[in-house]
This record gives sequence, C-alpha cells and structure tokens, in this order.
Amino acid sequence: MHVPFTVSDFIERGETGFSDSVAVIDEPNQPGEPVEPTTFGGLANRVRAWQAGFDGLGIGTGDRVAVVSHNSARLLELILAVPGSGRICVPVNFRLGPEEVDYIVGHSGASALLVDPELDDSLAAVNAPHRFVLGEQTETQLMRFDAEPKPWPSPDENAPATINYTSGTTARPKGVQLTHRNIWVNAVTLAMHTRAWERDVYMHTLPMFHCNGWGMPFGLTGLGTKQIVLRKVDGMEILRRVEQHGVTLMCGAPAVWNAVLDAAKQWQGEIPGRGRVRIVCAGAPPPSTTIAGIRDQLGWEFLQIYGLTETSPLLTINRALPADDQLDAEEHARKLSRAGLPALGVRLRLSDSGEVLARANTVMYGYWRNPDATADALDGGWFHTGDGGSIDNEGQLTISDRKKDIIITGGENVSSIEVEDCIFSHSAVAQVAVIGVPDEKWGETIKALVVRADGTDVTENQIITHCKQRLAGYKAPTSVEFRESIPQTATGKIQKFKLRAPYWDRTQHKAN
Amino acid sequence: MHVPFTVSDFIERGETGFSDSVAVIDEPNQPGEPVEPTTFGGLANRVRAWQAGFDGLGIGTGDRVAVVSHNSARLLELILAVPGSGRICVPVNFRLGPEEVDYIVGHSGASALLVDPELDDSLAAVNAPHRFVLGEQTETQLMRFDAEPKPWPSPDENAPATINYTSGTTARPKGVQLTHRNIWVNAVTLAMHTRAWERDVYMHTLPMFHCNGWGMPFGLTGLGTKQIVLRKVDGMEILRRVEQHGVTLMCGAPAVWNAVLDAAKQWQGEIPGRGRVRIVCAGAPPPSTTIAGIRDQLGWEFLQIYGLTETSPLLTINRALPADDQLDAEEHARKLSRAGLPALGVRLRLSDSGEVLARANTVMYGYWRNPDATADALDGGWFHTGDGGSIDNEGQLTISDRKKDIIITGGENVSSIEVEDCIFSHSAVAQVAVIGVPDEKWGETIKALVVRADGTDVTENQIITHCKQRLAGYKAPTSVEFRESIPQTATGKIQKFKLRAPYWDRTQHKAN
Repeated sequence: MHVPFTVSDFIERGETGFSDSVAVIDEPNQPGEPVEPTTFGGLANRVRAWQAGFDGLGIGTGDRVAVVSHNSARLLELILAVPGSGRICVPVNFRLGPEEVDYIVGHSGASALLVDPELDDSLAAVNAPHRFVLGEQTETQLMRFDAEPKPWPSPDENAPATINYTSGTTARPKGVQLTHRNIWVNAVTLAMHTRAWERDVYMHTLPMFHCNGWGMPFGLTGLGTKQIVLRKVDGMEILRRVEQHGVTLMCGAPAVWNAVLDAAKQWQGEIPGRGRVRIVCAGAPPPSTTIAGIRDQLGWEFLQIYGLTETSPLLTINRALPADDQLDAEEHARKLSRAGLPALGVRLRLSDSGEVLARANTVMYGYWRNPDATADALDGGWFHTGDGGSIDNEGQLTISDRKKDIIITGGENVSSIEVEDCIFSHSAVAQVAVIGVPDEKWGETIKALVVRADGTDVTENQIITHCKQRLAGYKAPTSVEFRESIPQTATGKIQKFKLRAPYWDRTQHKAN
Repeated sequence: MHVPFTVSDFIERGETGFSDSVAVIDEPNQPGEPVEPTTFGGLANRVRAWQAGFDGLGIGTGDRVAVVSHNSARLLELILAVPGSGRICVPVNFRLGPEEVDYIVGHSGASALLVDPELDDSLAAVNAPHRFVLGEQTETQLMRFDAEPKPWPSPDENAPATINYTSGTTARPKGVQLTHRNIWVNAVTLAMHTRAWERDVYMHTLPMFHCNGWGMPFGLTGLGTKQIVLRKVDGMEILRRVEQHGVTLMCGAPAVWNAVLDAAKQWQGEIPGRGRVRIVCAGAPPPSTTIAGIRDQLGWEFLQIYGLTETSPLLTINRALPADDQLDAEEHARKLSRAGLPALGVRLRLSDSGEVLARANTVMYGYWRNPDATADALDGGWFHTGDGGSIDNEGQLTISDRKKDIIITGGENVSSIEVEDCIFSHSAVAQVAVIGVPDEKWGETIKALVVRADGTDVTENQIITHCKQRLAGYKAPTSVEFRESIPQTATGKIQKFKLRAPYWDRTQHKAN
C-alpha cells in the first residue's frame, strides 16, 4: 500500500495519542509571567481553525501563505496548518528589511501575508491580497473555530509543502521548495538519529523560519513532545528556562551555545540539565572550545548535524560513539567538530574539486520559479552544496571550505573557518570573523575581526603570534581589527559578505 | 529530489560509518565457544559476495531466493543481500514440514533454495533450480569473494523486496509481498519509536524469518548496532548472553519472555541488564503477569507493538508514558497490555463490526500470485487485520478479539485472550490456551487447556472458581484439561486451530 507522506501525519498522531498532554508553551507576554499551555488536542483544533480560515478566504491547494514572525506558538501552528491543508507555507526571516520581504512575498506569489505585531510598522509597506497581524486580528478575523472538522487531506507527497527563502548572500534570495516527502523523511530520520521522544522537552532556541526549525516542529509534534517557545535568543534566559521547564533538547548555531556558555559563567548554582540535555549544533562550523565547553562547563551532550536549507536540512549527523567516551577533551572535541556520518538514506560524494555532493530524499524538489538555478544545483542528479569537504577513514565528513568562506592568498587556499577556530581558542577572544581582503601582492590577504572578551586587552600582535604558533604561517592573519560586535543573521551565521563589502568596494575586482 | 528507498540504504550506512565496529556475533558452534565477530565492513563484503554468487547463477532482478534457516549470521546476510541486489528474498519458517516448504518454494517460483544444514535431511525432497546447504557449500560453491565491488542498485521503491509466507492457519500459507518502501518506513519508524541506536546491543530472540525479524535487521544495520545471533530460544541462555554481551534490546512473543521469567527464578545473583534492557513484545497478547514480571522481576522495560506480517509489521506501539511512572504494578501492566498508539504515519479505524483496519506505508503491496486474497485484504483502500479491537480515550488500540480467538457461547462473544489472561494469573498455571468446543446447548462452550507449573496440583474446579471470581460467569471455562505442553509456532503463537481440530472433527459444523 502506498500512502502519501504528509505533514498532517505529525499533527494527526499528536492529537490521537497525546490529546491532553502539553504540546506548546508560548513565550510569556512579560518575562516570568505564567503561560496557559496548549495541549495537542488544542493545537490540532487551532490548526483546523487556521485551515478553515484560509478556506474562508478562498485560498486553495498549492496557494502560498507567507509568515514573518519571531518564534511563537502561532508560527508553529502555521507551519503545521498551511502545508497540512495542501497549501504552501513561506516562513520569512524576521530580520529582513521591508524591501527583502516584499521581494519574497512577490516572488512566491503569496495570497496571504501574516505579520508579527512587532514587525507590523516596519513592514507596513509590504502587502499581499490578504494581510493580517498575528494576534487579535487573526483570532477574530481569520481563524474559524466553529468549522466542522474534516479529515486531513492526502496531498501528493512530492508536492511542495514549504518554500524557504535562503538567507541573504550577495544575490537575490532563492525559494527552496521542500515537499511533504522531503519534510517527512527529514523529520523522521532526524528524530531517529537524535533519539527524540515523548519524554523530551524541546526548546525552540532556533528560529522556526529557518528551514522550518530544521524539521523538529514536525517530528516532535508527531512524537507527542512538549515544545517551549523562545522568542529571542539570550544565554541567561535559555539557562533559566532549561531549569524552569526541564528542557532536554535544543537546536542552534554555535553562536547560541557561545551565548549560553558566556551566561553560564554568571549562573548561580549547578547548571540546569547537567547529564540530561543534548544540543544539536549546525548552521556554521562550531569552534572546538564551544564543543568542549558544552561537555565540560555545562555537562550537556553535543551533537552536530550538517545540511542546508536545500536539504531539509539533514545530510550528516555526528554523535560521540562508545569508543570515543574515553578520549581526552581535545580529541573528543576534534572528533565532534566533524560534520558527521551521512544520515540513513543519504549518499555523499566529493566532486573532483572537493565539493560535497548529496543524493537524498531530504534534497529539495527545486528552487521556486528558478529553473536555471535548480538545474545548476541538481546537475547530474546530485545536489551541489557549494561547500568543500573531505571524508576520513571513519566515514565522517568534515566541511573544510564553505564556498563563501575560502580565502585564496598567494595561490594557497585557506579555510577561514580553520583560522577562526584557532583565534577563538585564545581566551581573550569573545567573537571572531576571518575574511579575505584585497592585497596587491597576494591577491587576497587574511584579516581577522575580533571582539575582545570583557576586561581583556589582547593586541593585534598577540593574536597573530597565537596563530603562527598553531597554524602554517600563510594561514595567520596579516591584520587584526577590534570591533564592538560582529553582525550575524538570525540563525547565528556571520554575514561575511557584509563584512567584506567595505574592503572590496574600494577595488574593482571581487573574490569568488 | 526523489531517491528510491532501498534495503541497500541500511547496509551502505553500516559500512560507511561503522566499518571496523562489530556488526554480528554468530551462534557459537558449541555453547560458550568463542565466535569471531563480523564487522560492518566484513558484513558488507559478505553481502557483496552473496550478490556476486547469484549473479554467477544468472538469477536476475525480481527473481526469488528462498531460505529456510534457524537464526544465523548467514540468514541475516541473505535478508540484506537478496533484496539489496533487487532480487526477492523468501525467508521460510524452519518449523514447517517438507510438504509445506515445497509448496512455498513452488508457489514463490524460487530460483534458488538455501537450506540450514540441520534441516537438509528433513527437506531432502524439496528442490529448486539451484539448491545449496548453508555453510561450506555456499562459501565455496556459491559466494564469490573476488568479484569487483559495484554500486548498490537503486530499485523501484515499490518493488517487492521480500515475500514472507504467513504461518499456517487452516488454509494454504499466503505470500506477503513487502516492498523496499514498506521495509524502509517500518525499519525507520520502529527504530525511532523504540529509540534504537548505535549504543544498543541487540539479540535476535525473534526468528528472523518472521516478518524479517520485524525489520530490526534492517534498521539496526543502518544504525551501526551490534547484533547477537541466538539460534534457539532458551530462557536461561538468553539471560547468560544478556550478561555476556551486554544486550540492551530484544524482540519476541510473550512465550519468549515467559521462558526468561521462568529461568530468572533459577538465576544466581543479580539479573543482568537491570535498568538497561528494553524488550519489544508482539505476536500474541501478553498476559498481565508477564508484563509485571518483566518490570518487577527483571527490571527490564516492556514495550508492546502490534502488527501482522502484512504490515511489515509495525502498526502500533505502546511504551509507558511519563504520567504512568507512578502507577501501581497492576494498573501499569494493564496500560501496557494495550496494543498501543498508531506509529507515525499509520491510520487506524474500526469497521462497523469492530475489525481493526489500517492505512499505512507499512501495509504490504499484496499477496504473491493471489489477487483474490489481495482484493479482500485491501478492500476499500484499507488493510483488514482480521482482529477485533477498540480504541480508548487515550487513543490506544486494544486488541480484544483476534478473529481466530473469539468464542461465541450462548450468543455471547467471549475473547479467549481475556479468559487466558485470567487463568494465567493463577500461580499454579505455567501455560494456558482457551478454545471453543462444540456444545449442544450453547453452540460453543469454553474449554481451557492448562499446563501446570512444576510441583503444583491445581484442579479443574479451582481454575473455574478462579475465573468466576474475576470474570462474568459466562466467560469462565466449563471444562479444564491438563496437558504436558501446548504446541506453539516458532514465533510463539499458540496454534488454536490445531488445538480445536480434535473436538470439531467429531461434529459437522465448525466455528469461524
């Protein structure tokens, strides 16, 4: 029997098996204020009310609904409700400016746009045939709580369920179409490899717009797992809520965990969740000190996954093996700094130039209304990640060069990640970004932008010496600039192109 | 991107990620004798050698290869190798007589037959175009260890991977065709719901021929989990190997766990695996005393699943929820005696007559060369389990009447399972089967066949009184016969039709 995979499978099982259990605890209106939990039964009813609302607007199968929102219970509901009724959800990065959002709403051809109340003013100029502010307006004017329940539809499993626009690089964002099958396979294999289950308590430390929260909202809803909404990342607040809610599972980029490690220094008493929390890290290469800190300072387990929005995102997973339990901290962190083993059903290979290629059911259907980019990305039946990597004799993938992150200096390829990792291991460094800047002699030369840790006064020379002691000489930066902060995307990625721009604008040529 | 699900996904990931880790420890030639473990790298090489062997015989894609074997490393290899190369594996019940095996080999049209050395004599008359005895003959005359490795094929995911003949009822066995997709979804959702992982040590207490060991051989190979072969079920030997190998996960019918519970009474010292082992029970309804014994006497966790060969088999899973941790032993066992919640992606409903119907990607493609039976089983797009059940307000399915197990006495429907459970709770009862026998007044009346526990002398009257105190009067047996043993299938199912036959042969009519 062939039954289409569908996003509805998750909400249906949550409602069937966990109707009276807590599904979601939303962000409190004021810090510390109690929040009325939503049960899985309540969540399913709200999903149906959203769907009946879209029915009422005449928005049909395959039509797009765009949502721009910080993490919230409503965003979670929409990620389930929109594809669960055969429509296509377009979750938009809440940090984008009005022009970028407008481009995405227009390019996706969204019939409806739903906006976070906090963003309503700044996005006032962005419109769609139907526009609502999430909250009272959607509760009273859109959702229909009196509609007759009807069976969840069985869409084509290869139809798109969401379109996730990739966060800004130098070009216009591209709309990644993820199908019901993509999402189903990703959610189930990710749950299997991370051993998510109904006794977990998950906190949304990752923005849900980002590749649908890596698929966790789907899998965890199907498993009956309690989900805690976190609206804005703050290290101390994460620790407080881990304690308050007994959180056991979180996902996020390295920057999230660095914020938690920073906060932990001020935390009074035992770190909550010691021996019980596991965190899944991706989105950028984690510094070894972050990996070691998670184990040694927090007593949490560190897992790494690797993937892209185009891969739903799961391609690889790295979790410490029994044989690694006895390793010293440094070797343990080194092993976990690798991207990991292919997830079940994922095939990886390296192109002649070392680019990581993938074949998997988590690979997108294609870019929305962009056949040229789709053909390039899926050339030869393999997805081209754009990242350079290597596979070691343990079968583990290591990403050495995100395409955007490679610096070519004097003909040598240097991974900015490797240099960043080295600089970050200096105790006086709070944050670092390494970029290539134009150089008459070398073409490019290496510059480090550094945020000093509080109360330290490390110098340019000390940083350069630190690197020369640990790396090949040509990999050391030739200059260091100290900054107050380094801009990041909402998902914790450093926006290298923005950092590079001021240096390259002064010259005529541009690196990769 | 749409990549066909295939059985090869499992062996490929095992080899990629766990090449030097132990994959299988075969049954020792003599009890206690050391066994050379096979690594995942070695397992993959042996799988390729089998495949090259079948290539050499000219056995092509879609051709059938039948295997009759007790659990062994070779049977595991074949379950992976035959479908992994696009051929169809037919694992045959090793307890069947030569006529039954001959029927299956003929009906499946097997090109090759592979026979356990222990069964070679008794199956001497059973033949196929190619016939081998597993062991030296297959190592030297069939397998090709010098063949060039080639990529695993990508078959149609909806093509059959195995044909599993359902164990004898009154009719001829039917060949259940399970596709690559059936097997993939079953293996992954079962692994997810049981939280199988690379740190588990799995022991094959379940015959692998039975619905491919419920799919565990596939999932665990993909996860890099060590598998211990157990050739023949013996309670004491199971305890010894749990201790020897640090086993953490096993599957089996209630009879297996009753044998372990019996052996535990003689076990010296602490029960191995306390607080660490979880067992998955299915194949027959588990008595409450078995469920309670697993927790209280062994300190193991009891999980129940429900399904049939036709459903790969996963339909439902029951695992204690956090809210159940504080329940007393009786209520805890009662909750776990239910078949459980639908697995992710499984939809269940009850027909008007109370029959359990299922829609899922684990439901078979159909019966091999039996379109009439297929049409009946899949009538209306739902699989008809033949079992009666109910769904409670926690969404949990309870199987009340396996179709074969219902007794109609004086117009009342009585579940023989319920009566068996009651009788089994009597401390002097080692084994019980309850059947309907002809009765002039009531049509059918209830008879209990009982094996007394060692050293007890419980009487017919005591058993009947025990039931009347606990059940409605009409559910109590009207007669009790004491036996030395009760015949079971290799999978621990009591063969009711064999027990009933002598009573019904003397009359002209026959109950369902």
